Amino acid sequence: MLKPGHFLLLVLALTVRSSLAAETPKTRPPTMAEVLATSKPGDWRPLDPENTLYVELATGRVVIELAPGFAPAHVANVKALAREHYYDRLAVVRVQDNYVVQWVDPDADKPALARKIQSAKRTLPGEFDRPLDPSLPFTRLPDGDVYEPEVGFSGGFPVARDPKSNKMWLVHCYGMVGAGRDVAADSGGGTELYVVIGQAPRHLDRNVTLLGRVVQGMELLSALPRGTGPLGFYEKPEQRVLLKSVRVAADLAPNERSNLEVLRTDTPLFQDLIESRRNRHEEWFHFQAGHIELCSVPIPVRAASAPPAK
Amino acid sequence: MLKPGHFLLLVLALTVRSSLAAETPKTRPPTMAEVLATSKPGDWRPLDPENTLYVELATGRVVIELAPGFAPAHVANVKALAREHYYDRLAVVRVQDNYVVQWVDPDADKPALARKIQSAKRTLPGEFDRPLDPSLPFTRLPDGDVYEPEVGFSGGFPVARDPKSNKMWLVHCYGMVGAGRDVAADSGGGTELYVVIGQAPRHLDRNVTLLGRVVQGMELLSALPRGTGPLGFYEKPEQRVLLKSVRVAADLAPNERSNLEVLRTDTPLFQDLIESRRNRHEEWFHFQAGHIELCSVPIPVRAASAPPAK
Repeated sequence: MLKPGHFLLLVLALTVRSSLAAETPKTRPPTMAEVLATSKPGDWRPLDPENTLYVELATGRVVIELAPGFAPAHVANVKALAREHYYDRLAVVRVQDNYVVQWVDPDADKPALARKIQSAKRTLPGEFDRPLDPSLPFTRLPDGDVYEPEVGFSGGFPVARDPKSNKMWLVHCYGMVGAGRDVAADSGGGTELYVVIGQAPRHLDRNVTLLGRVVQGMELLSALPRGTGPLGFYEKPEQRVLLKSVRVAADLAPNERSNLEVLRTDTPLFQDLIESRRNRHEEWFHFQAGHIELCSVPIPVRAASAPPAK
Repeated sequence: MLKPGHFLLLVLALTVRSSLAAETPKTRPPTMAEVLATSKPGDWRPLDPENTLYVELATGRVVIELAPGFAPAHVANVKALAREHYYDRLAVVRVQDNYVVQWVDPDADKPALARKIQSAKRTLPGEFDRPLDPSLPFTRLPDGDVYEPEVGFSGGFPVARDPKSNKMWLVHCYGMVGAGRDVAADSGGGTELYVVIGQAPRHLDRNVTLLGRVVQGMELLSALPRGTGPLGFYEKPEQRVLLKSVRVAADLAPNERSNLEVLRTDTPLFQDLIESRRNRHEEWFHFQAGHIELCSVPIPVRAASAPPAK
């Protein structure tokens, strides 16, 4: 929306505003940039290397935060698959516009060629939801949801809750990672994974196991050429995008890791961030929405200021 | 989510189901594919060449349906700009992941180099909303909306309505096209255009003029490399993606046009389509959402069976 030169103007405006802060009492609530500028180290959390996956493409690294609190069996299995190098040299075979990117063993249906599994499992029962634990932090959004009784954030992930069925589950927002499956509910398990690259496909919620979220490198997946076959499958083998490797971060030397911090979602600061997105006070906005959808709330990620202690 | 071989299975399953239809009474509501299979010619409408824009890239054609019912001055100006070839050889200068693609005159801020405008206007007052006309067809969605009192479809576009303020306006769903502006509400006009390539940025609704929707060729925009500068601007001129030309379809010979039909949104069939997406009865689904968001309802487009009469 902004003209190219305008970002500089905005930056300048913010700088001027900030340098005048002593003289000019603020009469408006803070913008997201201003909220983040006031964050303390404790508002951020490091990624846990044991629950972080690195997908290495020729173009760079995609960092996935795993969600063992929601899909413990799938997360354990995906880590086991990564550790036995099952994913290495698999390929993105499907990129469906406004929907998903998916990687898989392209020869999975050919017994003679299919990648063998060693100690991991090929399939698992679906982990489509979990019992609602009211003791888990849950930052509920004030504006409701078209699909579910309650939505918000728990442990850094977008979550829906239904007090009636006493369940909670991860929600298919942009960047969420799930385990593809066939028709049977227990036919997934993590051998093929997909990532949401479009408008939140909420009809998939509770139909398939979500197990994590891309926290860095989404653009390496979302900008891939779309497949021209049905469901966005690439029609020619040479169009496939190879995965050089998939590794658990803990298995890399500390200096080979992407040291990232994610904004905590259980803090007053995150509440302020939500409010700064419900009503945008940046100068450009003439109308404030007064509401926000779950999948429109960003969860900021930044480089850690110092690498974690060994 | 499906394994590569699975689409074939689905197609087979549908074929078998259909061939058994005489013996097997249907006990479930139709899927979207089944709804569309029953559509009659009158359920579709051709694009109006006078309100269709072709953006020609090196990789192919992006087809935009303009919305004169919502942004008459902007649509007229965009057509005037196209007709005086203002857009030809302009460039995509910004691709922000999960947000927008934007094209503009990269030299717009340099008076000596900036593209000159002949008879069109450089800026226009914003057309952020319009009076609510209850006589216009409006297919209202049954599940509500996080942002607005009423949402649905009018004239083939996603629309929100507010009976209290007596206004209606186009909504920022995936593929919607708008006129970039600076800080002032009247600083847009159509010289720069953006297209939504991510989760619906509803906070832009009523802040900027939407004037159309991409009905074909989205993947030529959505798969462009993301810009690495602030707000997704390309940092180097050579990264920009040139627009070969932008033309009003009516100005091309009939045999040079993309003859497309769009599903009407004011029919019982479209109501059936919405229902088929609220509750998915394809075999793969074990859980039905029972709801749908505005920006998750597809508006199908197909090649016209025969070119329109000259």
